[in-house]
Amino acid sequence: MEDRTIITIGREFGSGGKEIGQILADKLGVKFYDKELLRVASEESGMCQEIFEHQDEKPTSSFLYSLVMDTYAIGGYSPAPFMEMPLNHKVFLAQFETIKKIAKSESCVIVGRCADYALADDPDCLNVFLHADMQFKLERVSSELNVSESKAKDIIKKTDRQRESYYNYYTNKKWGDSRSYDLCLDSSRLGIDGCVDIILSCSKNMIQM
Amino acid sequence: MEDRTIITIGREFGSGGKEIGQILADKLGVKFYDKELLRVASEESGMCQEIFEHQDEKPTSSFLYSLVMDTYAIGGYSPAPFMEMPLNHKVFLAQFETIKKIAKSESCVIVGRCADYALADDPDCLNVFLHADMQFKLERVSSELNVSESKAKDIIKKTDRQRESYYNYYTNKKWGDSRSYDLCLDSSRLGIDGCVDIILSCSKNMIQM
Repeated sequence: MEDRTIITIGREFGSGGKEIGQILADKLGVKFYDKELLRVASEESGMCQEIFEHQDEKPTSSFLYSLVMDTYAIGGYSPAPFMEMPLNHKVFLAQFETIKKIAKSESCVIVGRCADYALADDPDCLNVFLHADMQFKLERVSSELNVSESKAKDIIKKTDRQRESYYNYYTNKKWGDSRSYDLCLDSSRLGIDGCVDIILSCSKNMIQM
Repeated sequence: MEDRTIITIGREFGSGGKEIGQILADKLGVKFYDKELLRVASEESGMCQEIFEHQDEKPTSSFLYSLVMDTYAIGGYSPAPFMEMPLNHKVFLAQFETIKKIAKSESCVIVGRCADYALADDPDCLNVFLHADMQFKLERVSSELNVSESKAKDIIKKTDRQRESYYNYYTNKKWGDSRSYDLCLDSSRLGIDGCVDIILSCSKNMIQM
């Protein structure tokens, strides 16, 4: 397939990642995947969608599982049959495969879910991270969720902690570190429309890997 | 003074920060400060230029000094007169004041030296960080310094470790973390000229703080 445009967007909660992704997809005339990805991954994997929604971008708590799997790996033999893979790992892998399958067949914008890591070998993929100052995020989140700024702050911090932990666990990169992405933008300084313009321009002009 | 354009550039060694900064300054018709900053800081402070060159962006090793200063600070009284400020702190402070003075009086592009931190309260200042993949940096550095790629790799790693340590010590931010800057670009994917265009466009369109 020629001339694909694939854009992945990592984002702080409240920085406008979903809005920017949606505008980009509309302008490019390509599909937009945010929560939509969960439905597709659910269909592809045969697992029910509620499981994907429950586990969505949540950090794993299966430290013991990792420990056991690593021990087996070091020993050079397979885990015992009773060690079935935990649900959050299955969900991650199903999403990972779905992201690769989607990006192979069509241009798209994908928000979150370690899409940049799933598409690490894709030469057409532009990986973006969006962040913003706290006041900008507070105003957006408190207005959108209709909660106080104090409550919004709690939600932002908790959500970003989860996203960071999820990303750092499943990828070999660091969430929010500039070196993990091609382009990072402060949406509170560059504006929602400004970010859209910069990302569009970069996706057209970037050097293929 | 109206319509100032101030751009600071943090950069990985070999990512093209100096080249991009120089082209930006030429296109904008403003002054470019890299090593030049050391000469100005030397003149302003009355300290000799060799000291600035020797200490340039080097991490402090004065752990003991910090410890003693912190202990005095907690105690709420001033350090004893025999505790004179070490040279690297004096050099940092002289540069810090020089950067603020320059940016107050003229448009400019400043590379490195925690300029983004010195100008944290400047509403006209766009803070950029440039990074690149290792192969891109190796080719640039080995060609520019006429050394093997293996030697270039050592130099890149050592220089970036120093820059990171210097930045993290003197500022309240993290070197290379996207949240420390308005705009971060991978110059190996976006190209030297591509980075120049994006930075120019952002500096014209950004929202004042």
